[in-house]
Amino acid sequence: MEETILIFGHKNPDTDTICSSIVKERLNKKNGYDNSKAVRLGNINKETKYVLNYLGIEAPELIEKIEEGQKVIMVDHNDFGQSVDGIENAKIIGVIDHHCIGNFKTSDPLYYTARPYGCTATILFKDFKEKEIEISKEEALLMASAIISDTLLLKSPTTTKHDVKALEELEKIAGINTKEYGLEMLKAGTDLDDFTEEELINIDAKKFEKNGNEFKIAQVNTVDISDVLKRQEKIEKVMTDEINKNGLNLFVFAITDILNSNSEIIALGSKTNVVEKAFVKKLENNRMFLEGVVSRKKQLLPNIDKNM
Amino acid sequence: MEETILIFGHKNPDTDTICSSIVKERLNKKNGYDNSKAVRLGNINKETKYVLNYLGIEAPELIEKIEEGQKVIMVDHNDFGQSVDGIENAKIIGVIDHHCIGNFKTSDPLYYTARPYGCTATILFKDFKEKEIEISKEEALLMASAIISDTLLLKSPTTTKHDVKALEELEKIAGINTKEYGLEMLKAGTDLDDFTEEELINIDAKKFEKNGNEFKIAQVNTVDISDVLKRQEKIEKVMTDEINKNGLNLFVFAITDILNSNSEIIALGSKTNVVEKAFVKKLENNRMFLEGVVSRKKQLLPNIDKNM
Repeated sequence: MEETILIFGHKNPDTDTICSSIVKERLNKKNGYDNSKAVRLGNINKETKYVLNYLGIEAPELIEKIEEGQKVIMVDHNDFGQSVDGIENAKIIGVIDHHCIGNFKTSDPLYYTARPYGCTATILFKDFKEKEIEISKEEALLMASAIISDTLLLKSPTTTKHDVKALEELEKIAGINTKEYGLEMLKAGTDLDDFTEEELINIDAKKFEKNGNEFKIAQVNTVDISDVLKRQEKIEKVMTDEINKNGLNLFVFAITDILNSNSEIIALGSKTNVVEKAFVKKLENNRMFLEGVVSRKKQLLPNIDKNM
Repeated sequence: MEETILIFGHKNPDTDTICSSIVKERLNKKNGYDNSKAVRLGNINKETKYVLNYLGIEAPELIEKIEEGQKVIMVDHNDFGQSVDGIENAKIIGVIDHHCIGNFKTSDPLYYTARPYGCTATILFKDFKEKEIEISKEEALLMASAIISDTLLLKSPTTTKHDVKALEELEKIAGINTKEYGLEMLKAGTDLDDFTEEELINIDAKKFEKNGNEFKIAQVNTVDISDVLKRQEKIEKVMTDEINKNGLNLFVFAITDILNSNSEIIALGSKTNVVEKAFVKKLENNRMFLEGVVSRKKQLLPNIDKNM
């Protein structure tokens, strides 16, 4: 029997990670690699649930670790710290990603396709086009959803002309009105009411390290920042617990208004001065309003990293 | 003025590194990026000299280091240890490579195209095809030379069907007889007579590290192994000097018969037992004959690395 190739995105999966895994499985099968199988490394969030429900398709199977020598394709990430347990001993045959590269290593040559686009699905879309493979209505909606999610309806500064062009074509194939569908999808994803504070700070959290300092940046999207700030006291409590438990030097929690493209951040830890230096602004009541800031990858992380 | 993008391969440049740098510059210019400039990080070897003389073109300019923030495209390598001084602080906008990935890191998303092919030029060839850009006679010969060099006229086990197909097409465009031209080129490259022993062990040497052990694998190509072995005593002397100077645990010097696809290796250092374990064979007089072994990347390194 042919060896299975597992395809997965990062832990704390978002819509790009899940949709790109599913689409990559389908693209592989259309290319004759029937042994490809999309899996996921965590729970499906509300936004992705909206997409899967819309299409009436199942989420990929959940896995927690992989065996030594398992053939894998990583999508939407390359950092081993954000990947499946056991990734160090996997046989990585491919990576399709749109992030900077770090903490990644293989002992064999491989297929690695990184592009500085706003979304992994945009790279996949181009792959369909270059190989002249037809995109089904379902695949188009999956890729469109990923692009809408990662670029916040093309409003995020991570958006490139490649994403714009891809979404334009995908909209036609999927037969949707991108703006209407996208707004519904984003709203579904920002319904934060039934999350506990502890869950809130873990919805989309990534850990980083610089010069011996460990720091974490978590982000939630909303259509009403003040609604989340009502819970500030309780949020700070769980952030402090996390700082103490994991010896973090800084914990930044960003509440991003996806409709107006701004963020309010809460920053705690011994290195909050780094945040003040990074954005040339004082924290007040542990908070700071950042106009025009919506991207962890392109705005929050590089500025904080540079000053850490 | 537009910022220059420097394009270069690894230190100790070989034919793929030089030819792919030149071709990538030309491909970029055909795509409208006039600010691209191929450069090199070391002396041109005899084989590459044969190619450049054949075409009557100049070698790229030699550089030794780069400034902070310099925009660069790395070809035929990704390991910072094999790259230009200052690479850590460069702005890497692209990588085109066919090696495993390690010791590579960026703080921004980028274009990274790795393929497990035998040669970087094969990736470039496919790029021309996908973008439907015409390949000139000169570009075809540069890419063909790189493929012939890296795959030893398609005999190396690193050769893939992609390299075979590319060389087939490039032969037609370049208007050469691949076998005749390739043999002359490879012979020009294996003329070792006027190298000192110290030069011999540095023609194509790469350093590695595993579990705290530093080791080096150097390789020379020849059409007559015994001719090189006449100098064994002097070669061992300079290898030992190198081991002592750089605290190496193992130094493997491979003399590869490119016509019959075998290698004789000389191994010195405290960890020569690793080599014996790796190839299940005893060293005699510090030497070992390895039938069918021609590739450092695919045969020597993985076996030694696994047992280190």
